[in-house]
Amino acid sequence: MNAPTAASHLVPEIHQRDVPAALLDALKARFGAECSTALAVREQHGRDESSFEAPPPAAVVFAQSTQDVADAVRLASQHGVPVIPFGVGSSLEGHLLAVEGGISIDVSRMNRVLSIDADDLTVTVQPGVTRKQLNEAVKSTGLFFPIDPGADATLGGMSATRASGTNAVRYGTMRENVLSLEVVTASGEVIRTGTRAKKSSAGYDLTRLMVGSEGTLGVITEVTVRLYPLPEAISAAVCSFPSIEAAVRTTIQIIQLGVPIARVELIDHNTVRMVNAHSKLGLREEPMLLMEFHGSPAGVKEQAETVQEIASEFGGQSFEWATTPEERTRLWTARHNAYFAAIQSRPGCRAISTDTCVPISRLADCLLDSVKEADASGIPYFLVGHVGDGNFHFGYLIDPQQPREREVAEQLNHALVSRALSLEGTCTGEHGVGLHKMDFLVTEAGVGAVDMMRTIKRALDPKNIMNPGKIFSI
Amino acid sequence: MNAPTAASHLVPEIHQRDVPAALLDALKARFGAECSTALAVREQHGRDESSFEAPPPAAVVFAQSTQDVADAVRLASQHGVPVIPFGVGSSLEGHLLAVEGGISIDVSRMNRVLSIDADDLTVTVQPGVTRKQLNEAVKSTGLFFPIDPGADATLGGMSATRASGTNAVRYGTMRENVLSLEVVTASGEVIRTGTRAKKSSAGYDLTRLMVGSEGTLGVITEVTVRLYPLPEAISAAVCSFPSIEAAVRTTIQIIQLGVPIARVELIDHNTVRMVNAHSKLGLREEPMLLMEFHGSPAGVKEQAETVQEIASEFGGQSFEWATTPEERTRLWTARHNAYFAAIQSRPGCRAISTDTCVPISRLADCLLDSVKEADASGIPYFLVGHVGDGNFHFGYLIDPQQPREREVAEQLNHALVSRALSLEGTCTGEHGVGLHKMDFLVTEAGVGAVDMMRTIKRALDPKNIMNPGKIFSI
Repeated sequence: MNAPTAASHLVPEIHQRDVPAALLDALKARFGAECSTALAVREQHGRDESSFEAPPPAAVVFAQSTQDVADAVRLASQHGVPVIPFGVGSSLEGHLLAVEGGISIDVSRMNRVLSIDADDLTVTVQPGVTRKQLNEAVKSTGLFFPIDPGADATLGGMSATRASGTNAVRYGTMRENVLSLEVVTASGEVIRTGTRAKKSSAGYDLTRLMVGSEGTLGVITEVTVRLYPLPEAISAAVCSFPSIEAAVRTTIQIIQLGVPIARVELIDHNTVRMVNAHSKLGLREEPMLLMEFHGSPAGVKEQAETVQEIASEFGGQSFEWATTPEERTRLWTARHNAYFAAIQSRPGCRAISTDTCVPISRLADCLLDSVKEADASGIPYFLVGHVGDGNFHFGYLIDPQQPREREVAEQLNHALVSRALSLEGTCTGEHGVGLHKMDFLVTEAGVGAVDMMRTIKRALDPKNIMNPGKIFSI
Repeated sequence: MNAPTAASHLVPEIHQRDVPAALLDALKARFGAECSTALAVREQHGRDESSFEAPPPAAVVFAQSTQDVADAVRLASQHGVPVIPFGVGSSLEGHLLAVEGGISIDVSRMNRVLSIDADDLTVTVQPGVTRKQLNEAVKSTGLFFPIDPGADATLGGMSATRASGTNAVRYGTMRENVLSLEVVTASGEVIRTGTRAKKSSAGYDLTRLMVGSEGTLGVITEVTVRLYPLPEAISAAVCSFPSIEAAVRTTIQIIQLGVPIARVELIDHNTVRMVNAHSKLGLREEPMLLMEFHGSPAGVKEQAETVQEIASEFGGQSFEWATTPEERTRLWTARHNAYFAAIQSRPGCRAISTDTCVPISRLADCLLDSVKEADASGIPYFLVGHVGDGNFHFGYLIDPQQPREREVAEQLNHALVSRALSLEGTCTGEHGVGLHKMDFLVTEAGVGAVDMMRTIKRALDPKNIMNPGKIFSI
């Protein structure tokens, strides 16, 4: 989800460590103008797309190379000062906030595509390369990188949060698509995890330990990901349904039948109404599925026929097809603008977003009860979802002047997460834990598993300087 | 690869820790007849399919439940004694050897399928369930579990070694297919990693840290894996080529074009000859590819046409098709019997197996030079490979009475691994590091990355009791 700043509130009292002048002097000496202590720069690096606020970092280092990152980490380590990696600031969970003080390491200038290995369907990039930039760079090879979390996030950030998005139902998440990383560890050492071989049984899977570690175990300085041949044929469709339940049941059946659908996104009737008002799309104001099929022309046709048959069993109607890129863009506008349309539907509002994900058979149970609760609360909301993966997002649109509304929204979120966990799901499908879901993580994974995470963190980062205060308390 | 015992040699001097009588008494008291100290039982649990030998474990505990495993680990931990999980003993890398002494925990009786969640395409099993047993159990649901390492290994063992095999080119390895685990940690605590949700960003990916950890971080006591709908159509084919290079180049192009082929296996002319002699198959004694296509009838036809076109460009001929299960079985016999046929081709010989995996564009470079070296050595060999993944196995057929032959075979392996690493590959695509590839791992991953693995190991297993002496020295 691409989400501008939501309702802000201060992070509860957390110890802000001192950043000694000696460190700032050393950083200035090493990085010159690439180390800034200007308030505006620090403030820009002290927030993300979450609803949290904390004092800004003491300095921002603009790294241009792995060596820069290693040196910055080493200096910070000498002083026991936290470092927080920063890409484009699109985190939704407070990952970028300097909750314990420290310095921000901005890797957005490390934005070179290092090696396009089209024959191997891989590409290696610096961490500041964004997904759109990557796709532009590989366009001429006939390949593409499918992971699309909405925001034009960096590959470093997407790796760190184990991001996914609309195409994950077919192509997997960052978990499946990162082959290898270069990482600066807490001591400032540079290591490489994995190789470009498609599979390996060589020791612990450090790549996947780093993917999703939210900057708490190291700073990612290089990412090798998989690419895929651009499908010969792509076809998109929208289909309206008489109820959310009908749309969800259609999705469940598509997945259970093993249709290799590339995207299947739910937008509820509220959100369609908001999108119509915002973008004048004239869509039927009913729950809808947006779908995309990738494959050979015959394969796409087969998939589409199967899906149309399933949809009509559940009352789906007014299938609208798009096969040209322009038509597809028009259809996907509804999905891409959902967040902005929702925000504008209630002037001055902010959104509190949820991110649960459940096994596909539980999707209807999880979603429909939460819709009932949201409707009963009286708080307006939007609802979109990567439903093919069992993942969906409510955005509760609260008036930040009304503390009661925030409270109700948090209660709704709490009830939703509890429901998802009781249905064998997860509190976060793709946004990460950050600051907001630390308690949920303990409920989900159990004290023992979180203790294991903590033990690993302590062993690899004994001074607790790598993005501290995220995922779990130490 | 399914491999009976290869050339044996003693593991170099490693400290055998004492197993105090007090521990054996406590185990007997807790487990009664399910704890055996009979020499035959201990010897059976003190070896695997590798060429290594070590003294047998001091006792074998036949666990029937997670609680049994936890209690055995807790007792062993109190005495600082190693524990080695045991499934069916099909490891190829010495994983099961009690190189530092200790007790074997046999989980083969923990072989219940706990929950078939067909609607979610998942199944949860105890670690002693084998892949064939699993497929038998889910047969009636129209789903299947694709990972096939050759041997009828247990799901626990396959998870621990990050196994893959013939279907991985389409369906991925255990890395991609394990959703969740239950694990007994070094302190005897039971934790759960992951949920049944298809994706999650909830904290460190402990599931994938455990997958491939070769028993060194915990004992796996439950495994949840993905299932897939049985393809509507399956079609298999063999095709002969004028050279290994032609077969390899055909494979490379199939992969680069993104054909979703389910299996593409190389068998060289030597091995075809051995298989013909063994199973009277009457196959052309030329390098061949064995392939399998999964999909809709139209999709399979499309894939097959594309592949046939590519193959004929490289001189592939005498395509033989099989669409019924019986015909397919006959074709795959060549692949499945390759090892046994090879062993029988040189009476009294033993095989030393390799397991490199490289990016697909490097496959020809890696393989062809190694074929030249193997030919020049005069040592007979077989050559099979999951070439669609860039992974292949030489089996050097040595006379165990001739130390010089073992030496030459190890030199060939060394040259092959060095070549694979220089081509950005890995020393082990699917067998694991175990005892045999510890030095290769350091060359491949670097001292820093192996130190990170070691740090994690020390933190999670401070007494170093979990299958010590494997992957790296502590």
